Amino acid sequence: FKIAKLPGDGIGPEIVEQAEKVIHAIGNKFNHQFSFEFGIVGAAAIDKVGDPYPEETHNICLNSDAVLFGAIGDPKYDNNPAAKVRPEQGLLEMRKKLQLYANIRPVSTFESLINKSPLRPELIEGADFMIIRELTGGIYYGELRGRTENGTKAFDTNVYSKEEIERVAKLAFSFAAKRRKKLTAIDKANVLATSRLWRETIQEMEKDYPDIEVDHMLVDNAAMQIIQWPKKFDVVVTENMFGDILTDEASVITGSLGLLPSASIGIHTSVFEPIHGSYPQAAGKDIANPIATILSAAMMFEYSLNLPEAGKTIRDAVAASLAEGFVTEDIASGQAYKTSQVGDWIAH
Amino acid sequence: FKIAKLPGDGIGPEIVEQAEKVIHAIGNKFNHQFSFEFGIVGAAAIDKVGDPYPEETHNICLNSDAVLFGAIGDPKYDNNPAAKVRPEQGLLEMRKKLQLYANIRPVSTFESLINKSPLRPELIEGADFMIIRELTGGIYYGELRGRTENGTKAFDTNVYSKEEIERVAKLAFSFAAKRRKKLTAIDKANVLATSRLWRETIQEMEKDYPDIEVDHMLVDNAAMQIIQWPKKFDVVVTENMFGDILTDEASVITGSLGLLPSASIGIHTSVFEPIHGSYPQAAGKDIANPIATILSAAMMFEYSLNLPEAGKTIRDAVAASLAEGFVTEDIASGQAYKTSQVGDWIAH
Ligand SMILES: CC(C)[C@H](C(=O)O)[C@@H](O)C(=O)O
Ligand SMILES: CC(C)[C@H](C(=O)O)[C@@H](O)C(=O)O
Repeated sequence: FKIAKLPGDGIGPEIVEQAEKVIHAIGNKFNHQFSFEFGIVGAAAIDKVGDPYPEETHNICLNSDAVLFGAIGDPKYDNNPAAKVRPEQGLLEMRKKLQLYANIRPVSTFESLINKSPLRPELIEGADFMIIRELTGGIYYGELRGRTENGTKAFDTNVYSKEEIERVAKLAFSFAAKRRKKLTAIDKANVLATSRLWRETIQEMEKDYPDIEVDHMLVDNAAMQIIQWPKKFDVVVTENMFGDILTDEASVITGSLGLLPSASIGIHTSVFEPIHGSYPQAAGKDIANPIATILSAAMMFEYSLNLPEAGKTIRDAVAASLAEGFVTEDIASGQAYKTSQVGDWIAH
Repeated sequence: FKIAKLPGDGIGPEIVEQAEKVIHAIGNKFNHQFSFEFGIVGAAAIDKVGDPYPEETHNICLNSDAVLFGAIGDPKYDNNPAAKVRPEQGLLEMRKKLQLYANIRPVSTFESLINKSPLRPELIEGADFMIIRELTGGIYYGELRGRTENGTKAFDTNVYSKEEIERVAKLAFSFAAKRRKKLTAIDKANVLATSRLWRETIQEMEKDYPDIEVDHMLVDNAAMQIIQWPKKFDVVVTENMFGDILTDEASVITGSLGLLPSASIGIHTSVFEPIHGSYPQAAGKDIANPIATILSAAMMFEYSLNLPEAGKTIRDAVAASLAEGFVTEDIASGQAYKTSQVGDWIAH
């Protein structure tokens, strides 16, 4: 298997290294070969070649079976209006060019971390859902955007085609079919024309999935219910902007923010990355938690490489490290271990 | 004072009646005259005249010092694609025609309800912030919206002018000045052109308010932080769509959903209403909680009628009813009282 390795900025390189160890260990155990090709991305790429997602990196991804991604973002580009290119642009460009149309974020609780949640334990114990966010359309990419000539008015356009909606909804239905058979489609159909197309399109698809219970929910209501009754959700599907907000909201309710993986499913290849950011303050200190990245590698085995058993092996190893308390300082209750030590332990 | 009374649908009439009692009691105590003019709105107005915000109702509002609003929405219009006019359209039209540019939602906890919150008590005890949502612009009203000819593509436009941003931001700065002097401006400036204009405009205004600490935060990050650290917020300002989502998210964290009031500040008059909906299942049963509406009346005294003392008197009476447990069944721990009884008690 050919894996593109894009560590990016901040703690990216350290955490991706641990996932790489785990992938090699899987290779030994299950007798598979993995070759890693390194690509620059984000602030690191701007510094080197002035482009946060260079053509060369894109080609490495295109020619890969899967992309293992770290994190991007550097404080020197934050609140700096003089910066013409910004690391995030690389991310948006990568999503578009690789046609990463669906971002999948499983949200589940880890027993040992439940007391880190801002929510009452009884509300979240056993919560287990996934949010599927459309990732290459909507207001993120609508081409009509900018300022009027005198600069006093700004505008963005939210655009969706039926095909874009069908593509991501199909994926959501297929996940629901493999899970508890509940799909919640979130929109703002009482206000937005795009949302009405979303709702209509999904309603049309429902007849093809008679065993799946579909619930249409307004985004404001969803923002409430995710906190009030996280356990009632199974598979959630929504458009790009609402997904950005709701996935982040959902990520904190389990208390496991530093442990949550994600997958972005694409036409050409798919990208696997932790949901957390580049955490620049911790970069190079060997203290960052590698588990979210390692669990992203587990998703890679399941979704891209068709090796679900390998994915399960990784998940079990992670569960063992949590159970034994062999974890980094952010979640340790007793002794804390280094990033590299946790990687070694899980890979062993 | 001339007050427009728009009870609307569902429990609207019952709860507005209680607020009316309280307003009359204030009139007796402080020696003011209030005349109420009744207007139809929402499903009730569609049923009568086919329009959810009829011209006559608009004129009653225009000629008022303040509008007391109940709730709108009727299940017969939900998921009914055949319905051409819907109650919510009346709401959006009212906001536009009265130029209700700022929706203000205070979020605060009530000691006796803290155990109703999905959040851990220590996170919310003492939380006290307000969200100011721009209410007449953005993607709610962008005129370019609809479908392409063959119906397979839909689009909406998000539009903001500098003046619209300045108007609501000015209000937010003035509230922050009277409170803990912290303003959090929420946008998605790393993606949206409108958000960049929001950020730029507020940044330009900061120098006029040197004693106010302004924090610019991305909406996805805000969706997390509101749950993680609700106590760190003081005044929050944001655009229409983000505000819709974040105000609803914030409303559940205190556990006091049924008690939260709101004000929509306008050019011609202002509208005061509970944040909860029309709760059709409870309509006519005399069981709905009137407190959110009564507290909305308190906001009316402070923001529109310039009688802050009256507002405080109402708030104290509500606090007493909560402390003594003279409340409706939704929040009663012992005996529950009727809507009308709670109204009488608070007005007495
Ligand atoms: C960095 C930013 C452009 C990005 C987004 O909004 O999609 C991020 O918030 C995310 O969710 O991956
Ligand atoms: C009913 C709907 C159009 C409305 C909105 O989105 O503004 C409601 O959710 C609100 O927040 O008042």
